[in-house]
Amino acid sequence: VTSTFISDFRSIKPKFLLKQEQAIQSLVRLRLQLKLRPEGWDEQTIETRIRRFGLANSQIETRGTEISDYVESNNSIDSFFKNGQVPSLEERMEFFKKRTNEVMNEFYDAREITQPSDIVHVTCTGYTAPNAAQELAANWAKKSNTPITVTNAYHMGCFASLPALRIAGGITRTHGGRVDIVHQEICSLHFDPQTLDPEQIVVQSLFADGHIRYSISCDADTHGFEVLALREEILPETSELMSWIPNRTHFAMRLAREVPVKIKHALKPFLQKILASAQISQSPDEIIFAIHPGGPKIIEAVENELDLTAEQTIESHDILRAHGNMSSATLPHIWQKILANPKRVDGQVVVSLAFGPGLTLSGSVFRLIHSHGSGSAR
Amino acid sequence: VTSTFISDFRSIKPKFLLKQEQAIQSLVRLRLQLKLRPEGWDEQTIETRIRRFGLANSQIETRGTEISDYVESNNSIDSFFKNGQVPSLEERMEFFKKRTNEVMNEFYDAREITQPSDIVHVTCTGYTAPNAAQELAANWAKKSNTPITVTNAYHMGCFASLPALRIAGGITRTHGGRVDIVHQEICSLHFDPQTLDPEQIVVQSLFADGHIRYSISCDADTHGFEVLALREEILPETSELMSWIPNRTHFAMRLAREVPVKIKHALKPFLQKILASAQISQSPDEIIFAIHPGGPKIIEAVENELDLTAEQTIESHDILRAHGNMSSATLPHIWQKILANPKRVDGQVVVSLAFGPGLTLSGSVFRLIHSHGSGSAR
Repeated sequence: VTSTFISDFRSIKPKFLLKQEQAIQSLVRLRLQLKLRPEGWDEQTIETRIRRFGLANSQIETRGTEISDYVESNNSIDSFFKNGQVPSLEERMEFFKKRTNEVMNEFYDAREITQPSDIVHVTCTGYTAPNAAQELAANWAKKSNTPITVTNAYHMGCFASLPALRIAGGITRTHGGRVDIVHQEICSLHFDPQTLDPEQIVVQSLFADGHIRYSISCDADTHGFEVLALREEILPETSELMSWIPNRTHFAMRLAREVPVKIKHALKPFLQKILASAQISQSPDEIIFAIHPGGPKIIEAVENELDLTAEQTIESHDILRAHGNMSSATLPHIWQKILANPKRVDGQVVVSLAFGPGLTLSGSVFRLIHSHGSGSAR
Repeated sequence: VTSTFISDFRSIKPKFLLKQEQAIQSLVRLRLQLKLRPEGWDEQTIETRIRRFGLANSQIETRGTEISDYVESNNSIDSFFKNGQVPSLEERMEFFKKRTNEVMNEFYDAREITQPSDIVHVTCTGYTAPNAAQELAANWAKKSNTPITVTNAYHMGCFASLPALRIAGGITRTHGGRVDIVHQEICSLHFDPQTLDPEQIVVQSLFADGHIRYSISCDADTHGFEVLALREEILPETSELMSWIPNRTHFAMRLAREVPVKIKHALKPFLQKILASAQISQSPDEIIFAIHPGGPKIIEAVENELDLTAEQTIESHDILRAHGNMSSATLPHIWQKILANPKRVDGQVVVSLAFGPGLTLSGSVFRLIHSHGSGSAR
């Protein structure tokens, strides 16, 4: 089977940078401003509860958000929660459409960018048809005779970068060409202020927004990664522990406490199988690990279970600290960070691990290709 | 590039069969039963308007639905619109989850069915994570050491069977194995009774529910189709004409009158390009056409533009007449019908055409393989 390669990462920051203390304050403020505030929700009750269950800035320092309400205390002109009202799902989808179109245009605005054969559009936080990738393809069709083919990788949650690699890899193996994967996640669009449920307070102090683009091709002459293996497993009897379902106002998440424990137990055999299928002979302690920070305890649980050193997971911690959990956009940000780290050298193996509803345990094995013209060492 | 093959179609009928006259009556009745009925909506106004814009049974005779309210006039125990209330989006997603799980289990309940390596789950009418394919994979994981990998092909609309072939073809080319594609569309879940807009009356008298499963592999020794070409184009300046966006109660469709005209103009060059890429030498009048019946006028528009005979499109008319527009499940039902038609012989070329938001014009070229052991004639 022909190898596929990942390269040319470019991320675009959300409009607003939110410090974690500021985020905690805005979670309190948005509840106090609610037009239909539940009985008994006085300032002290709300603040106590948010501070008790919200993630402190020891793990997350900053997150990006597209929603001005999380950074500004006044009802500004572009306020989302107007007069304390909770927007309907259609208002959120409209917001998603507008902002993702802007970001998509920014991704393809650069003079040096050439036309991809395909775009795989990845999101679990906004569904419009047509979507931002289709709008871009329609515009591109005015000046090009070759169409851009758009494929959606939707509603798969945090691990969706790995199915996206499966889809994009299959496409470039079939007809060659450069398949761009574009992640657009606006998780903060779905934070519901009408709850003080501990699970939801964790979610609202953990998730964040992110946009990132990268390219897949069969071209070995690249600066990036060679994809050696992909694997996904769904763990039996865990389907109730995590879910993501659209409702009348937002997409609602269930993220149970038991998730890290369930995942932890499945890790060792999973790692063994994926390394075997990638035919890797390196010792595990020489491998770089890209771990999706699904919850505050996940990176730690993986490190403990697999006996990893801080050195092996440094980029995962860095991305969680600076960006929070950007759902499917998170792992690609970690990959971008690994490529930018001068300590990571050509030929090193990178194992990625991500988790989502199912519970799904998803992973990949890459080989780092650090210099142009080096090709594959395989 | 290795060829891929389609085989083993199995469809499962929705719970209720709805005659078109009965459907028209239920569209009237559900409006009369509305708890919050708009002013001026008396019986005569409603009936006149529904009969004026609803599709008569000259083109569609029956459609399948999972919702009992469309066939029964009483408020039965499993009534969806309880006491004339309009269900919220979360109630509809819950309904979707329950019913798709049942149907998925039925698809994989047969003793003779072996485990696929992958399932590509295709829908644009219900998004839950985990989904029915993931629940099935989780159950299967209890008795098998090899996981079933699930990939979503979501929110692409009526033409999604063709991206699903692109995804599944890439997967089986990458690692072999049998990739099952499972379509589950419950369009009637999203009929909003709170409107008398002509466009919406057309939608509610056209769309229907459908479930179908088939398999993709690199195994030429099959009874089915060889995939020779796939192509997708997005037409510039048409993005406003068709849309599909979740709102607080349902997924809402925009389907403008101009769609058939816009599509019609793009057909000839599209057909020329896709036949060229499939390296087909047959005369166009020997080709079978599978045309997605996106609207009442689409099949006719395609026939006129491409000069097709009734013989060439008979299965498309049959499926529209007996099932309505089942969104992404429609083309696979037409393919199943072509395979079952004894007049269609080994080696015949089948061109499929489907349309969706973008506007996207999507197509495929297959070669029919009518007897086991015949392999590919290519």
